[in-house]
Amino acid sequence: MQRSALGLRVPMGMHDLLPDEMALLEHLERQTLDLFSRWAYRRIQTPALEYAACVQPDVDREDQLYKFFDRQGRILALRPEFTPSIARLVSTRLRASQPPLRLCYGADVFRNSTPHFREFRQVGVELVGSAEIIADAEVVALAIKSLEQLDIKDFQFNLGHMGIFAGLMRDLALPPGLREGIEEKLARKDMVGIESLVLQNDLPERTQDILLKLPHLHGGEEILDEVLGWSEDSGIRAATEGLRQVYRYLRDFGVQRPVALDLGILRGFSYYTGVIFEGYVPGVGFPVAEGGRYDSLYADFGYNQPATGFAIHLGSLLGLFPVWESGEADILVFGRDVPKVIRRCLELRGQGKRVEMALGPVTRTEAGNLAEKKGIALVEKV
Amino acid sequence: MQRSALGLRVPMGMHDLLPDEMALLEHLERQTLDLFSRWAYRRIQTPALEYAACVQPDVDREDQLYKFFDRQGRILALRPEFTPSIARLVSTRLRASQPPLRLCYGADVFRNSTPHFREFRQVGVELVGSAEIIADAEVVALAIKSLEQLDIKDFQFNLGHMGIFAGLMRDLALPPGLREGIEEKLARKDMVGIESLVLQNDLPERTQDILLKLPHLHGGEEILDEVLGWSEDSGIRAATEGLRQVYRYLRDFGVQRPVALDLGILRGFSYYTGVIFEGYVPGVGFPVAEGGRYDSLYADFGYNQPATGFAIHLGSLLGLFPVWESGEADILVFGRDVPKVIRRCLELRGQGKRVEMALGPVTRTEAGNLAEKKGIALVEKV
Repeated sequence: MQRSALGLRVPMGMHDLLPDEMALLEHLERQTLDLFSRWAYRRIQTPALEYAACVQPDVDREDQLYKFFDRQGRILALRPEFTPSIARLVSTRLRASQPPLRLCYGADVFRNSTPHFREFRQVGVELVGSAEIIADAEVVALAIKSLEQLDIKDFQFNLGHMGIFAGLMRDLALPPGLREGIEEKLARKDMVGIESLVLQNDLPERTQDILLKLPHLHGGEEILDEVLGWSEDSGIRAATEGLRQVYRYLRDFGVQRPVALDLGILRGFSYYTGVIFEGYVPGVGFPVAEGGRYDSLYADFGYNQPATGFAIHLGSLLGLFPVWESGEADILVFGRDVPKVIRRCLELRGQGKRVEMALGPVTRTEAGNLAEKKGIALVEKV
Repeated sequence: MQRSALGLRVPMGMHDLLPDEMALLEHLERQTLDLFSRWAYRRIQTPALEYAACVQPDVDREDQLYKFFDRQGRILALRPEFTPSIARLVSTRLRASQPPLRLCYGADVFRNSTPHFREFRQVGVELVGSAEIIADAEVVALAIKSLEQLDIKDFQFNLGHMGIFAGLMRDLALPPGLREGIEEKLARKDMVGIESLVLQNDLPERTQDILLKLPHLHGGEEILDEVLGWSEDSGIRAATEGLRQVYRYLRDFGVQRPVALDLGILRGFSYYTGVIFEGYVPGVGFPVAEGGRYDSLYADFGYNQPATGFAIHLGSLLGLFPVWESGEADILVFGRDVPKVIRRCLELRGQGKRVEMALGPVTRTEAGNLAEKKGIALVEKV
């Protein structure tokens, strides 16, 4: 049946990957998944379609989900990320496994609200069942190693801790609503908004001072010393020293150089509880890597386990690489005797070559032209 | 937020793949995609979400589609297969490419009506722009080689031709409605239904004879000779001789043995026009491979090109293989000096080993127990 104009288009935010783009994506995915494997993370897969009851509670903006009803009237959703799905899987079928569990994935996720990427490839890991600081360090280090492995230049990681922000908010005893306002503006990095919010409220000088400084604390260990001077609260001190230890372990992993401590980051998913981080690459206007510790999510699935992990937005990295031109094959085989052509092709393929068989009778000139147009270096007549 | 009981389940027909299952699926997919590459097929990817206007017209049963509305009220659908999506892609962005085009894919498709597999991995190829018989032979041979490559035993292929059935229906000048009835029963292999349909109608003896024999014609070239005795129609003769030639080429490809000619097969998608085939494996109650020639679909996308291809239902093959037990890592490294442990892990990973780092202080006994439970053969203290 003849297609309408709509039938010739892809929906907004969806993409076709042509052979050279796909070869590049496969290469990037292979490189990261192989790295994850050497760090003892094992690949799993969860369904693209989940009950919204599984994936929805942790999506901040409900309109991110592609949702629809099944025949029984239950709401299904395309997964917007992997973390809740893996929590569901671990809490049910992998409950008998010895922690810590190291799992990884590489597949597409779906978000209805982002303008350019509504379906995009993510690779990532989850480390489940360890509350140790070294577990945080391992996960942050692996995220950084992943970008190194992909030969990405000039990337930058920001490393923070949800416990410092949460502890300070508690300690400062802010008026109702102010914490949420600051949190929301901080998540959007709206520094001007924070300033006007702080000045609008009649706050003690110390509180004002801390709220105005916090979003700008970015650098090395010295910013942690500054925080320690603000409060005697044991939760804040533990979070600060934990963050310091992770940062120091990153030096042992050989990946501290691109990392800045940053107390102004807050991650977009509501489940983070501890060390959090995000990775940026010049030319991409959003984090290409994001992750952190989420110690309360598993309890929501009835299996109380600490956990940490990250995801890399692989689709957004494709534009950073030169076009991957592999040609359509290594060799074109042609000839009048079809059975002979078939056998020669099989023989060359047995040697691992990418062999294109000419279909039907072609002259030497035609074969040459075909090879030229298809970027095939060798032509063989049999 | 605490999950409901529903949030702990996967929707009907959806599946989690645990590490060993996923490793097996990855292996099978890698084996077939590498084979496709040696046959000069290049991998592409189309979106999981398409406009229904692209993928719907060729799905026989509309309720197969997972459908929903976008914000502009247009109907989106999860792809139930790749053939129309690739036709859309080739007809738009690859229109300038020199035919023939050889494309392949490996990704999940979605069908709302099948009981067990509603999301499943398909690998497949499309050969676009050649009407030559050798193109049909290449595609059938590659489908068979794919199952060989996967070390699947005792599979069987049936090979038929839409043109023989269509030509006979034309030639026999059946009463209105009877052709559709027979077609529908043939597609479901309902032999009893065909017989009662034929006997209910008052048909000439020759017509009765042909309609009762056709569904049972299964074997070698002799069945083609029988068809040639039925009619002088040039379309039927061309289809029959074309099918004979494809069957003979399969001998040159070394894959004729598992193939039976079968004039009783009709494929489930309405777009097939020529040689069609399906592959069966003992223990799987539906075709694990299916494909054929579809020479009119591209015209529906405004780019008139002959085409042929196939898909393999990789998900359904997982159960045919022994469990893939790889253990969680090759070696577990532990020790009191964390920086030393980190460096030793990095060193071993640099040698390509899968290395699990113990998280936090463990004794030698604890490390041994952990390795035992995780199936890790080597334990190293640093």
